Amino acid sequence: MLYLDQQGDRRISSRELSESLDVNSVMIRNILSLLHKNGYVKGNVGKNGGYQLLKSLDECNVGELYDLTIPPTISYARFITGKSNVMEETHPTEIADNIKETLNDLFTLADKDYRKFYHQFTLADIKNDIQNHGYFLNKFEKNSD
Amino acid sequence: MLYLDQQGDRRISSRELSESLDVNSVMIRNILSLLHKNGYVKGNVGKNGGYQLLKSLDECNVGELYDLTIPPTISYARFITGKSNVMEETHPTEIADNIKETLNDLFTLADKDYRKFYHQFTLADIKNDIQNHGYFLNKFEKNSD
Repeated sequence: MLYLDQQGDRRISSRELSESLDVNSVMIRNILSLLHKNGYVKGNVGKNGGYQLLKSLDECNVGELYDLTIPPTISYARFITGKSNVMEETHPTEIADNIKETLNDLFTLADKDYRKFYHQFTLADIKNDIQNHGYFLNKFEKNSD
Repeated sequence: MLYLDQQGDRRISSRELSESLDVNSVMIRNILSLLHKNGYVKGNVGKNGGYQLLKSLDECNVGELYDLTIPPTISYARFITGKSNVMEETHPTEIADNIKETLNDLFTLADKDYRKFYHQFTLADIKNDIQNHGYFLNKFEKNSD
């Protein structure tokens, strides 16, 4: 999106994006498709295809883009215990049977909180940090403990 | 740790933990080793080995345990563009060359923020939610937007 913004009115093909950013072209096309569906870019795929950014960078919220590209899942819940059916009789424990729901809730709440962090920023902030590296770190150094 | 706490003074082998929680025994031993090194459990490995929890659940901060078991890394920085050396001359762009540092900073700050979330809780809260499922959700429902 920064690249599209930088190129102004020129229509950029997914191939050019893939090559100049050195990002896998399948990922580029998937993301362009998502962005197109959600009104961030206009354009079309194909031989003479190309894309332009429809919004200014400060209208592109990083948190909204995060939500679009990485929808909430329970994939982050990695430390789940299995079903201890076999052992249940020999070692009755409420833990293995019930911790899954508890951790799912906790991870879901943590994930919501995590997403809030990104919602503080737009792509204009990202561009700002690229041009003046340290912008993000300085912003939080002041408030850090 | 909840299981160790539940078993009181009885020394629990890593095998029993692995079996009754249905968690991979290598993961159990790695975690026990970390917990031992950091003063959460006493005990030893081996044939007659076994472990006991040295702290009460409300002394075990979830965030501290998170930091112990999942140290800060840059492994979460997954959307990094490659080095576009080849294209640099044909399509000079500051983006591919500089976005890596910017995203690393942003992800690092987001990860710090994420860890803060877990530091609000102790294992006593986890036990509370296991016994009264919904404790975490209710806690945050009140404050949510």
